[in-house]
Parts: sequence; structure tokens; C-alpha cells
Amino acid sequence: MLKSRYAVRIEWGDCDAAAITFYPNYFAWFDASSWHLFESAGFRAGLLMKEQGVYVPLVEADAKFKRPGFLGDELTVESFVEEWRDKVFRVRHIVRRGEDVLLEGTELRCWAKPHPDDAQRFIALPIPAEFRAALS
Amino acid sequence: MLKSRYAVRIEWGDCDAAAITFYPNYFAWFDASSWHLFESAGFRAGLLMKEQGVYVPLVEADAKFKRPGFLGDELTVESFVEEWRDKVFRVRHIVRRGEDVLLEGTELRCWAKPHPDDAQRFIALPIPAEFRAALS
Amino acid sequence: MLKSRYAVRIEWGDCDAAAITFYPNYFAWFDASSWHLFESAGFRAGLLMKEQGVYVPLVEADAKFKRPGFLGDELTVESFVEEWRDKVFRVRHIVRRGEDVLLEGTELRCWAKPHPDDAQRFIALPIPAEFRAALS
Amino acid sequence: MLKSRYAVRIEWGDCDAAAITFYPNYFAWFDASSWHLFESAGFRAGLLMKEQGVYVPLVEADAKFKRPGFLGDELTVESFVEEWRDKVFRVRHIVRRGEDVLLEGTELRCWAKPHPDDAQRFIALPIPAEFRAALS
Repeated sequence: MLKSRYAVRIEWGDCDAAAITFYPNYFAWFDASSWHLFESAGFRAGLLMKEQGVYVPLVEADAKFKRPGFLGDELTVESFVEEWRDKVFRVRHIVRRGEDVLLEGTELRCWAKPHPDDAQRFIALPIPAEFRAALS
Repeated sequence: MLKSRYAVRIEWGDCDAAAITFYPNYFAWFDASSWHLFESAGFRAGLLMKEQGVYVPLVEADAKFKRPGFLGDELTVESFVEEWRDKVFRVRHIVRRGEDVLLEGTELRCWAKPHPDDAQRFIALPIPAEFRAALS
Repeated sequence: MLKSRYAVRIEWGDCDAAAITFYPNYFAWFDASSWHLFESAGFRAGLLMKEQGVYVPLVEADAKFKRPGFLGDELTVESFVEEWRDKVFRVRHIVRRGEDVLLEGTELRCWAKPHPDDAQRFIALPIPAEFRAALS
Repeated sequence: MLKSRYAVRIEWGDCDAAAITFYPNYFAWFDASSWHLFESAGFRAGLLMKEQGVYVPLVEADAKFKRPGFLGDELTVESFVEEWRDKVFRVRHIVRRGEDVLLEGTELRCWAKPHPDDAQRFIALPIPAEFRAALS
């Protein structure tokens, strides 16, 4: 199974008035880490979108927070696909400061194109075998 | 049960390269909507923190996305506490564009103070009866 | 001269560890307020981009901060075009809390399309007379 | 003169619907790069705030944008103090993609503490000689 590691440093602007990470930033780092994972397998966001009209939008997202992250902490986000279904797949993200796990979460994403008759909707499509193979 | 409504307009800067809301923004709006809910019950973030040293940090967060939100959409976030435990409570958020539900999610939050011997940790405390009463 | 007012409330996630607005957020509000101004004149971001391939990217941005903005403050951003040149125009933004001016700033924007031979560049074009007329 | 370099990769969530960096993010990177500069000289944000009650809030900020930054671009922010006055100093930031300068900007910051009688205001103080010496 392909795993990637994405490094994050908690900056001043990532913290809230309690001087800990404002939690939606963790989801932004999940998203960035998913793209790093996909790119490490040869799939770049820009090219998927421009050349194939493909997006991988979110179906679900969740996180369980165990310890706060503080200003200046150096974190790593370990990411991998833990579940494959026909049109959706789940990426797990484990955020650590050194050995300590600060939080874990997942993103359920689908392989999708804009609906040809309704640009307001996406249609989920079967995940290409090469994408699955590259990440498995 | 106390319910609040928080209005959001999807701005240019909230959208990603697919011209839909970058999903972590929904969690930022969940957070803002939770504070609006607490304030509608008389509990202000700044006062809780400064006068009582109390925070309501996240234990879990999740969302299920049903429809994308587009640039210029006017949304409302309906929020209410759907579950009370001794030290934690769960806020449900329902995000609508008109009648359509775009997404739903929850935040599990605890009533907490910084640990007196270790500023790197929070200690969860029993939820005050008046907070629970005001939001029920 | 057309002026618009955009309302902002400083939320928990907008504040930094000093419990005041993290300053890049003011530029995000400048951007949103510019779009509100353009839309009040009949020019919508989504339609400009999709129907005409037109963008109004930034050439310069600046701000002078006079007073900090605190958690929970209700602000208004007053915006108007204060300078017109052939291909660029300057939007002034005045951010107030009640009568007090917290900051002022400007955005110099150009009327642009992607370069036909090089998608990595924009070409500035003369500002359409109807855009100028609607905002003057 | 002390100079620092801060690396940034333009992620999916940093881009707007035009697939270029949403410009307020550049100011967030200016801020992070300023802190990296100060820390490379031995002054950490968290310690300044907690141990000395000192902040270095913004007085002015500006940027001139030359080329757009695209999804996936690897950037470096070069930062240094280019001007010292009694209570304020100006940090210059030069953002490059390889050899190309994408933008330049400055932050005018002051050395400040909260006003003892009015927590809503900061008082600017003379910049300590050791801070100036470490960054010169």
C-alpha cells in the first residue's frame, strides 16, 4: 500500500485565540496530503482536471482529535487509501508530532466529472484501475 | 431545543480551482455557527476564555457532503446540540441553499480548561448545568 | 461614484493567538467586498469568468492598520473605485467598527484574459466602458 | 543583513476559481516568513508573547504582483528587514518560482505591548537593541 508523508509546521496564522491550531486547518492539510499521495502515484490535480475533466470531490470527512497542536509544532501527515469501492475510496490521515498522534481522520472521495447537462452536479464514475493499482 | 441560523455567502476566496467550496471552509462555518449558537444562549467565546479560562475544543468533527456549493451561493447553517454527555456534547450543523441540504455534519466538543501543570494539555470538565439548560 | 458596504463579523477562526484578526483576512474581506461592489453594478465573478473569459486579477494591494479588530467585532467594509486608468483601476476599502476606522487599503486590479499562447500569463485589456460607467 | 528563505508549495486549497493563488494567501506566507526570519535570529513568536507580553503587529502591508502563482508551484519567500525606525521596522519579502520573481511586498511592523489600561489598544515601544542587532 502506497503511503505518503506530508510535513506541516503550525504557523501563527494557523492558530486561534487559544494559541492552538484552528481545527479546519487540519482538513486543509488532509486535502494537501491527499494530493501529495496522489501525485506520488503519478496523478496531478491540475492535469486530472485540465486533461481529463476529472475531480475527486469529497463525499465524507471526519477527524478525531487527541491532543492539541501548538504554534511552532512540526507535524507529519501520513496518508494512504484504506478502502476501495467501485466509485469511492477512503483516504486515512494520521497526524503526528514526533511519535505522538495528535489526530486521525479520513476523507471519502469519489472519482467524478461534471454532469454534461447540469454543471451544478457531479457524476461519480468507476475508479480507473490504474489509479487504484498505483495507490495499492 | 435551541436552534440558531448562521448565514454564509460563498465568496471567490472560498472556492477552489473547481469553482466549488474548498471543503475545509465548511468546518470553519461549522465553528462560526457553533459560536453563534452559544452566543444566542448567552455564552460568548471571548468572555468564556478571559473570565473563566474555559475553552470548548473539538473532540471529533465530521461531515457528509451531498451537493457542491458554488460561488455566490447564499447558504444557511442551522445548528443545535443533539447530544449531551457529562463532559462532551455534539452540535449538529445542517447547511442549506434554499430548501436543498448541501451537507450535514457534527462537532463533538468538550468543556475544558488548560491543565494547571501542563499547558500542552486540556482537562475536560463537567458541562455546567446552566450551559446545558440554555441550549436545551 | 458607486459605493458598496460589505458586513463582516470577526469570528473565532479569523483571530490569531493574540486574539486579534490575523491580518491576511482583511485582504480576503477586501476581495469579497470588491466582488460585492462589482456585483452591485451588475458584474458577477462567475459570469465574467465563464461567459467572457475575463478575470480581474491583482496588480497591487496595500493596507494601513490603525486599530486592531477583536473577536466578535461587527465591521463594515466600504468600497469604491477611486482611480481609473486604461487597463487598471484602484478600489479603495475602508473598514470600520461603528464610526472608528480600523484600517484602509486599496487593490489595484486589471481587466485581463489568459494569454492565448501561454496559459501561465494574463494579458491586460482596456477596461470596458460599461464597467467603468456602472461603477462611476 | 540576516536573510531567511521560507519554502511554500501552492496547494489546491490555496487556489481560487481561476486556478491561481488567492492573493491573501501571499500575505499569510509573508507573515509565516517573517516569523521564520525572527526565529532564525532567536526570537520565537510563542515566547515573545508568553514571556514578555510582546507582539509585533502590522502597521502597513503591501504587495506588487508580477506573475500569477499556479497550483503545484514550488515557491521561496526571501525575507529581510530593510528599514529600522525607533518603534517600527519594515520586512521585505520577495517571492520566487525558480529565478522568476512572482511578487514582492513589505510589512511594516511595530514592537508592541497591550495598553495596561485598555486591552483594546497596543502601545508601540522602542525596538530592543538585541532584536535589531540579531537581524541586521
